Amino acid sequence: MFGEIEFDQRGLAPCVVQDFATGEVLMLAYVSAESLEMTLETGDLHFHSRSRDELWKKGESSGNFMHLRQLRYDCDGDALVAMVDPAGPACHTGQRSCFFRALKEDRLVAITEPLIDPAALYPPDTPSEASPARGRGEGEGI
Amino acid sequence: MFGEIEFDQRGLAPCVVQDFATGEVLMLAYVSAESLEMTLETGDLHFHSRSRDELWKKGESSGNFMHLRQLRYDCDGDALVAMVDPAGPACHTGQRSCFFRALKEDRLVAITEPLIDPAALYPPDTPSEASPARGRGEGEGI
Repeated sequence: MFGEIEFDQRGLAPCVVQDFATGEVLMLAYVSAESLEMTLETGDLHFHSRSRDELWKKGESSGNFMHLRQLRYDCDGDALVAMVDPAGPACHTGQRSCFFRALKEDRLVAITEPLIDPAALYPPDTPSEASPARGRGEGEGI
Repeated sequence: MFGEIEFDQRGLAPCVVQDFATGEVLMLAYVSAESLEMTLETGDLHFHSRSRDELWKKGESSGNFMHLRQLRYDCDGDALVAMVDPAGPACHTGQRSCFFRALKEDRLVAITEPLIDPAALYPPDTPSEASPARGRGEGEGI
């Protein structure tokens, strides 16, 4: 089925992550053939981190894995939707969804509250994951 | 608010289109600053067609415009979700969503039926839009 996917020049394709139960769009990340293989093998979402240029298991540091319920392909095979059961907030900010800001009267406003304190997402023994040095808003390495 | 968006090297950012009423993910396309400006100005989704490298109003040939209800930004500003009221099927195949195929036991299967015959989407007087010469599965030019 990988033959059905049109990866871009970097060997990646965008993958929309949607909550299977609520339909909420939780995040958008990029898959490689390798990460997709790992996802299908383990049942938990794996991506390719563009900032770190490496395989990345979603939840590897936060514990908030995402269990795959269904994988959907678009008509021309260059984008995917992964329907998941999330174990916790998708976003490194502690928000349920990374898309927690909306444009209202020319301003971006938060439309939801964090589920948990982001400091609680990444324990002190995982400094490399929680450090701001990783780049702004990169979460676990989108 | 455009300053909040991290466009890629091509000046584009992926935009997930979600049905405001049902939560269904309808398609994924790419926005430029120009197409976003047109969307906010007119209230109807505009994208940048990567295949034609030009501004593209969704529904310009099919009549199936998408009225913007809410625009959401992700945590690091490199992806958007547009919540919309769609005037008809999002997909050039006549399917409500472009993501109408799912992986089941290593095979891709259609999970929905087309809402209308794709031939009815593009009348004979718009050959340039409906022609296969435009590239496989490009719809209106994603």
